Amino acid sequence: MGFEKVAIVGSGAVGLYYGGMLARGGKDVHFLVRSDYEAVRAEGVRLLLPDGEIHLDRVNAHASPESIGAADLVIVALKTTSNGALPALLPPLLNDGTAILTLQNGLDNEPFLAETFGAERILGGLCFICLNRVAPGTVKNFFPGCLTLGEYRRPPEERTREIAAAFRSAGIDCRLAEDLLETRWRKLVWNVPFNGLTIAAGGIDTERLLALPGMTDEIKALMTEIQAIAGAAGIRIDDAFLERQIDITRPMGPYRPSSLIDFLERRSVEIESIWEAPLREAVRHNVPTPRLRLLYALLRALC
Amino acid sequence: MGFEKVAIVGSGAVGLYYGGMLARGGKDVHFLVRSDYEAVRAEGVRLLLPDGEIHLDRVNAHASPESIGAADLVIVALKTTSNGALPALLPPLLNDGTAILTLQNGLDNEPFLAETFGAERILGGLCFICLNRVAPGTVKNFFPGCLTLGEYRRPPEERTREIAAAFRSAGIDCRLAEDLLETRWRKLVWNVPFNGLTIAAGGIDTERLLALPGMTDEIKALMTEIQAIAGAAGIRIDDAFLERQIDITRPMGPYRPSSLIDFLERRSVEIESIWEAPLREAVRHNVPTPRLRLLYALLRALC
Repeated sequence: MGFEKVAIVGSGAVGLYYGGMLARGGKDVHFLVRSDYEAVRAEGVRLLLPDGEIHLDRVNAHASPESIGAADLVIVALKTTSNGALPALLPPLLNDGTAILTLQNGLDNEPFLAETFGAERILGGLCFICLNRVAPGTVKNFFPGCLTLGEYRRPPEERTREIAAAFRSAGIDCRLAEDLLETRWRKLVWNVPFNGLTIAAGGIDTERLLALPGMTDEIKALMTEIQAIAGAAGIRIDDAFLERQIDITRPMGPYRPSSLIDFLERRSVEIESIWEAPLREAVRHNVPTPRLRLLYALLRALC
Repeated sequence: MGFEKVAIVGSGAVGLYYGGMLARGGKDVHFLVRSDYEAVRAEGVRLLLPDGEIHLDRVNAHASPESIGAADLVIVALKTTSNGALPALLPPLLNDGTAILTLQNGLDNEPFLAETFGAERILGGLCFICLNRVAPGTVKNFFPGCLTLGEYRRPPEERTREIAAAFRSAGIDCRLAEDLLETRWRKLVWNVPFNGLTIAAGGIDTERLLALPGMTDEIKALMTEIQAIAGAAGIRIDDAFLERQIDITRPMGPYRPSSLIDFLERRSVEIESIWEAPLREAVRHNVPTPRLRLLYALLRALC
């Protein structure tokens, strides 16, 4: 595709970080900015990385998609709770060849974008990373993590590799998913228990959660429910993967999942993407998921 | 038994209320008082009832069980989280004929008292009532409710009827349980979901809980788990009883279960009695109880 011009829709932590990195890597990046518009226009974007700071003092900040115009790649980094805005926001950014990459959480975003803008445009990415917007235009990254990219219902294509190469040359550990949907289910195996229970157990980090008596069994039991739903949907996740999710979480220390941060900062939590979407699949495939149901009902009450 | 002298162990809301009512009914009531000792000694006991106020200006307040001495009836109204104190507190109150009536929550109190003091002494009572200690020595009762009494592992005896008659002549709607254990399980059908979920859903009353989307299904599902454990323990509770628990709760309005009040006022919550005891029975009888397990783990984190 030979992409150069990138539009970032949603300039929260995820959008500022990946857009900022691509700009640093030499791409022509345009940010569609809502709340931080004045700050980003005046001060640029600041990325606080584990190994130093990147300050992009002049970035292309826009208040409307019309001002950006058609791009080669549109990166969607809105909270999924704002997805209703996309049918109005995206058209000015698209020409026939524009690819749309959603970096959002959950199962529903690619199907939604595919239905609205055409399946052939759509890619998805999973951000295994901890990002926190600490001030307008400023994002802190606690550990490098990685980004996994895939095509919607297709194996990786030439453009997938090009986009991944651009991320890599900007310093991001970027991998390709042969099966994007499988990767999304694997991420839910972690997100459903950890994002949910850290909220429901009183707003505590993963370290304190794992230290609670009996809680690790509940985390595993929730993972097993997600595994069962995925299995019914034709996606096999083995038991060792579940165990490994516990093992990789322990060394993270007092980690706060994105939903917990949203909850603690009284922002809307992505309940539909993370808990409701798998629950809907469970109902469709008739898979019993008592813990997911109870957790979902509690989160609806709490968030 | 011809009982006259009553010792009240634990002078919180429950102890002050039932002791105060028996004193008003003419019994020789002695209160073992911890935190409210000075207030009760100086000002007596005040009961704020739906239809008026009762003020007992001179009551027998004691700081130690030795000062009370042997009684005909000992009423245990401590929080179950203080049960460890009973083997030291009760012996000075007992002679050969003394009956012990526990008004505490949960399944474990009668077996514990029976093992320590002899099964033939033990009665249990279930308080279907809302009481709140609003000031030292002062208890507010929001609606009359009723008290159900039974013998430990025996049908009602002559003394059960005598005690019930004394409560009735003091103005309390007192009933007899043919099978005390069955009555306790039936109370858990209500307490497990409502006391637990009002806490886990963010510290909200039963009216707000029942208004949450999907929550009534979760309440029923938890009730069904308790029904299954009781069934495995030989106690049959039919489906209509479960439905009725929802029906009777709706008209209660913004009701705060006792555990929710304890939680909101940062007092210890009776987790062992209400959630751990049935969970232990579930393990013993190999009954799957995924929602009870998750709720229990969350309550351990929250309380």
